[in-house]
Amino acid sequence: MIKAGIVGATGYTGLELVRLLAHHPEVSLEVLVSQSQSGKRLEELYPYLRGKVSHSLQELDTAHLAPCDVVFFATNLGVAMQTVPELLKAEVRCIDLSADFRLKDPNVWGSYYGMPHACPEILGDAIYGLPEINRSRIAEADLVANPGCYPTAIILGFLPLLEQGWIDPDFLVADAKSGLSGAGRQATSSALFCEANDNFKAYAASGHRHWPEIHQALTQIAKRNVDLTFVPHVVPMNRGIHATLYAELTADTDTLQTLYEERYREEPFVEVLPIGSHPETRQVRGSNHCHIAVHRPHGGQKVVVLSVIDNLVKGAAGQAVQNMNIMFNLEERLGLDAIGLFP
Amino acid sequence: MIKAGIVGATGYTGLELVRLLAHHPEVSLEVLVSQSQSGKRLEELYPYLRGKVSHSLQELDTAHLAPCDVVFFATNLGVAMQTVPELLKAEVRCIDLSADFRLKDPNVWGSYYGMPHACPEILGDAIYGLPEINRSRIAEADLVANPGCYPTAIILGFLPLLEQGWIDPDFLVADAKSGLSGAGRQATSSALFCEANDNFKAYAASGHRHWPEIHQALTQIAKRNVDLTFVPHVVPMNRGIHATLYAELTADTDTLQTLYEERYREEPFVEVLPIGSHPETRQVRGSNHCHIAVHRPHGGQKVVVLSVIDNLVKGAAGQAVQNMNIMFNLEERLGLDAIGLFP
Amino acid sequence: MIKAGIVGATGYTGLELVRLLAHHPEVSLEVLVSQSQSGKRLEELYPYLRGKVSHSLQELDTAHLAPCDVVFFATNLGVAMQTVPELLKAEVRCIDLSADFRLKDPNVWGSYYGMPHACPEILGDAIYGLPEINRSRIAEADLVANPGCYPTAIILGFLPLLEQGWIDPDFLVADAKSGLSGAGRQATSSALFCEANDNFKAYAASGHRHWPEIHQALTQIAKRNVDLTFVPHVVPMNRGIHATLYAELTADTDTLQTLYEERYREEPFVEVLPIGSHPETRQVRGSNHCHIAVHRPHGGQKVVVLSVIDNLVKGAAGQAVQNMNIMFNLEERLGLDAIGLFP
Amino acid sequence: MIKAGIVGATGYTGLELVRLLAHHPEVSLEVLVSQSQSGKRLEELYPYLRGKVSHSLQELDTAHLAPCDVVFFATNLGVAMQTVPELLKAEVRCIDLSADFRLKDPNVWGSYYGMPHACPEILGDAIYGLPEINRSRIAEADLVANPGCYPTAIILGFLPLLEQGWIDPDFLVADAKSGLSGAGRQATSSALFCEANDNFKAYAASGHRHWPEIHQALTQIAKRNVDLTFVPHVVPMNRGIHATLYAELTADTDTLQTLYEERYREEPFVEVLPIGSHPETRQVRGSNHCHIAVHRPHGGQKVVVLSVIDNLVKGAAGQAVQNMNIMFNLEERLGLDAIGLFP
Repeated sequence: MIKAGIVGATGYTGLELVRLLAHHPEVSLEVLVSQSQSGKRLEELYPYLRGKVSHSLQELDTAHLAPCDVVFFATNLGVAMQTVPELLKAEVRCIDLSADFRLKDPNVWGSYYGMPHACPEILGDAIYGLPEINRSRIAEADLVANPGCYPTAIILGFLPLLEQGWIDPDFLVADAKSGLSGAGRQATSSALFCEANDNFKAYAASGHRHWPEIHQALTQIAKRNVDLTFVPHVVPMNRGIHATLYAELTADTDTLQTLYEERYREEPFVEVLPIGSHPETRQVRGSNHCHIAVHRPHGGQKVVVLSVIDNLVKGAAGQAVQNMNIMFNLEERLGLDAIGLFP
Repeated sequence: MIKAGIVGATGYTGLELVRLLAHHPEVSLEVLVSQSQSGKRLEELYPYLRGKVSHSLQELDTAHLAPCDVVFFATNLGVAMQTVPELLKAEVRCIDLSADFRLKDPNVWGSYYGMPHACPEILGDAIYGLPEINRSRIAEADLVANPGCYPTAIILGFLPLLEQGWIDPDFLVADAKSGLSGAGRQATSSALFCEANDNFKAYAASGHRHWPEIHQALTQIAKRNVDLTFVPHVVPMNRGIHATLYAELTADTDTLQTLYEERYREEPFVEVLPIGSHPETRQVRGSNHCHIAVHRPHGGQKVVVLSVIDNLVKGAAGQAVQNMNIMFNLEERLGLDAIGLFP
Repeated sequence: MIKAGIVGATGYTGLELVRLLAHHPEVSLEVLVSQSQSGKRLEELYPYLRGKVSHSLQELDTAHLAPCDVVFFATNLGVAMQTVPELLKAEVRCIDLSADFRLKDPNVWGSYYGMPHACPEILGDAIYGLPEINRSRIAEADLVANPGCYPTAIILGFLPLLEQGWIDPDFLVADAKSGLSGAGRQATSSALFCEANDNFKAYAASGHRHWPEIHQALTQIAKRNVDLTFVPHVVPMNRGIHATLYAELTADTDTLQTLYEERYREEPFVEVLPIGSHPETRQVRGSNHCHIAVHRPHGGQKVVVLSVIDNLVKGAAGQAVQNMNIMFNLEERLGLDAIGLFP
Repeated sequence: MIKAGIVGATGYTGLELVRLLAHHPEVSLEVLVSQSQSGKRLEELYPYLRGKVSHSLQELDTAHLAPCDVVFFATNLGVAMQTVPELLKAEVRCIDLSADFRLKDPNVWGSYYGMPHACPEILGDAIYGLPEINRSRIAEADLVANPGCYPTAIILGFLPLLEQGWIDPDFLVADAKSGLSGAGRQATSSALFCEANDNFKAYAASGHRHWPEIHQALTQIAKRNVDLTFVPHVVPMNRGIHATLYAELTADTDTLQTLYEERYREEPFVEVLPIGSHPETRQVRGSNHCHIAVHRPHGGQKVVVLSVIDNLVKGAAGQAVQNMNIMFNLEERLGLDAIGLFP
């Protein structure tokens, strides 16, 4: 059994890790860390875990985490980078679900996140944990930077077209929509029910923190700079990301559907829906799958890709477990095959 | 492996049975019947089942169902009573999630449901499938009448007090609230998003079809007639039932909490929350648990019981699987231990 | 024109006062006070007011408010009682929408609100601003204590039966449900979208702050002590209160509908719906009306009253404007006749 | 007083016309037509109208409508074109809120709407009722084709840039999101609460019926063909449209904000929000305003325009009343200045 720890177990992402790991057949959940709630039992705070998870929450102390085989960080910005180096020295493999290790350039990181990076020397060693492009390197990694939720949906949507060079990389549009759980559990007035319900809005339209992460990945895939315009929006729902992607086709092709189906045929968690489909966020609720559909409006030269995930699963905890399965040479679907809730 | 069939597999309750049975370690899902969608593959209709459930939907034909060990009916009123007698003759055990077999008196049944009962002679053999009061009889049953969602929440809430005779049965109030999935998938204008969203209302305040079922059970528990006032309401949410129960204490007691804790100590799916708790429907979303809390406002002689379930699980499909586990002598929690989605 | 001021203009209730008073044909909105946002212009904070309300927000200073004819307090607990005495001396009439002046007994007030009352000597002078029971006294009042939202819906629902003595006052149940705006705009985690959406729960089941206010009014109406059990719940919607009331009939009557229709025939803001109706919160959204329906389940001796209001209008700002109209001898409907938004 | 009639008074758009016209100071609402509910009184069907609108619903009969000065059609496709010619002959001016008269080319109309147009000879006379581009022609019009909701938000968003020729018309993206009321009140399963709640999806990504209307208007504004990609989405909310528009700047400019502010300075119902703003649908709920913000992500050559309206007001009934005000030489804001509901 793989001994696992979770730092930040009481946020939405941490709780989702608990859900997935508590029933994972090859994992023993050893340590749950919560700095705000340490000392309490998780099931007292969350009655849905009564009788299912009996752990008490601990303070963040590397001595407690050192016996683990793998530690997941579901923490706010800046926490993981303070602790990961020490754990790596103790030969604990780390999967960071925060943004601490996703960018390769510490200067870009610093300019977007407003603080200097605590361990720029290991940024280069962190493997970007998107299995669909990095599977073999994840298998060997000691430190995996789990992708953000928006980046996962957007990269998987553009990937086949950019790999083939079939679209013009100078005008890529990613119009993305997220449920409220993407904002976490901090009590901010804009996330109040009455402020978010029966409302729709964009935010960070002039530039969002996830932009450099997406840009870095797309540029690497395209093997040249891409000009990406990314606008995120908030949807009054709990879970789900829907990315609507726009680009201009440069290739003369009638095989878009085939391109996507073949690129993802072997991928356990990417489903290319039939021609004419419109994926829905509820169809991936609670699941680690990404559903994709490709459209060519009016048969013209513009392509529209619809890509949806559950931001807490394929966009966070599920992908982290998928990465763990790869790192520990387990079947990739292990612990991730539950059927989602519908409706 | 228990060979199982589901009649009515494409409604909300039928799909919930599919979710639970597809992963049940002792069940082989053999036949899925849908009269409206027969011939189609379930995963084509519901992309969330892609790669997880490969069955095609069949027409309702007892010849197809006869090889099953158990058949679940997740059908509209009046369907099960046409088919169950034939299946029983073929030694197929039946669990009916509709209202066809819940009332003992065919005249009462007929007056509430507006048609004569098709097989009144077997009404008496049907066992009311609430394990917390009927476990041993369920184990022997060939035909289980799975309780309604409102009745489950309300009966479990009143049960300890009525068994002890600690409340006045002449004035029982059950104010119940349900999410929209309780109304099924029929396209009716009152269930449209714009009609139900940002709204709250009661319905059937002068008398609801579930009343005789609840009344029958409470009367049996109290061993005398009870005067129950039951008003259901619609909450703009997908899943969940919250019953708020009111009664007058006739006993001079300070051990309400202990009463509930002891009554349900051995029950795998009833959780009595700590004193002062307020159970929430989301804490049982996707789970077979009933969460209960007991209050005595201002320390007076009135008692308030709060009882919540997921209407599609403990209120329907989950309880049906629990009953199946009992009927086939399996561990009662089998296939029912998944952690719910939060948030 | 009546010169009006609002203290606490940026909360949900204060903004609703702004909405109603900005278009009131006999009111000139003179002063808007917000301690947290003073100096800013209201329309900058709330784009829906652009071009409609040009006021800047001011600090709380009685010198600014003294020229007003009437000042509304839409403030947190304990603010109005610090300022009202001074304004009354300056001959400014006051309408307090907070709980500061609703209870007659300063000791009860202190025990429920956890602080001593600042001006117990004027508690007796405050008129409880429910026009349906206090119209003539409101007309003469210098200080009106505007009722709470739950109390308004519940008192109007029980009023005809209690006045006639047709129900047993020893077992009254008020099961009440409120939208989230009742909790105000404070950023608390339980009011976050993801915590409140797709959820239903009770709160304060052992005793809520509104209980003594309701109890005081019902006792006064019944002319004897009443035993009221009141449990509030949270509905995932923005606006609306639905009170479901239960009592035992002591009278032998078949004229419940007539009783209600006659009691409220002259009331401009109480609508008794036809027999068999189920009022919906959305039908009073944005309106000052209370919709009521009376049911007698199964023709028995229990009565169920359904009473709905918009908590921010008849439950707060609208009723305050209604009270102002009465105080200043205006037509009671003035400024309150807009048709609500549907859907 | 202008005598007005509404055909289709019981749909969401028709009811919104009732709301606006019932209180319009220069309008007398004479005839309300509903083919499905004729004979009933509107306030019996909709309790929120009790005491406010006393009309009975009539059958569709031009004799009843002929005495009107203006008739609004809030009908399904194909109804208005059967009746409008006769009304025009009777010198009744018509405002059609359906799609019957929005396209100039009857062949395009027929190919998108799947039936031949009933009166292609008057298509050319219908004036497209977007006051911001057609005010003077609307003033003279006998037949106004009220724009669709998506077209209104999108055209107003692109208008200043296209007029100036500052963007490349060969790659325009309109990613649009709508609340459920845009789908009307027909009981379809995809519009059920449980199917739409906690979900987000695109639809008609390969081509939507509103596309030719938007394309026709943008082409006319740009004075050349534009290549528009338009993808609509459904948001789990009642009201509101949010259009996110993307284009490439061809001009070397730093005055985008000024361009928009000056273009709309005199427009009573278009508000250009300050730099850096993100308009929210709730800020225009119930109002006839369009809120617009312009962004230039990372200071690059792509421009993002955010444009929001209430689909039932500026996207339908409100714009129709605005057009009526223009047609009858009234102040354009008349009857349209109510403050929206917040929250």
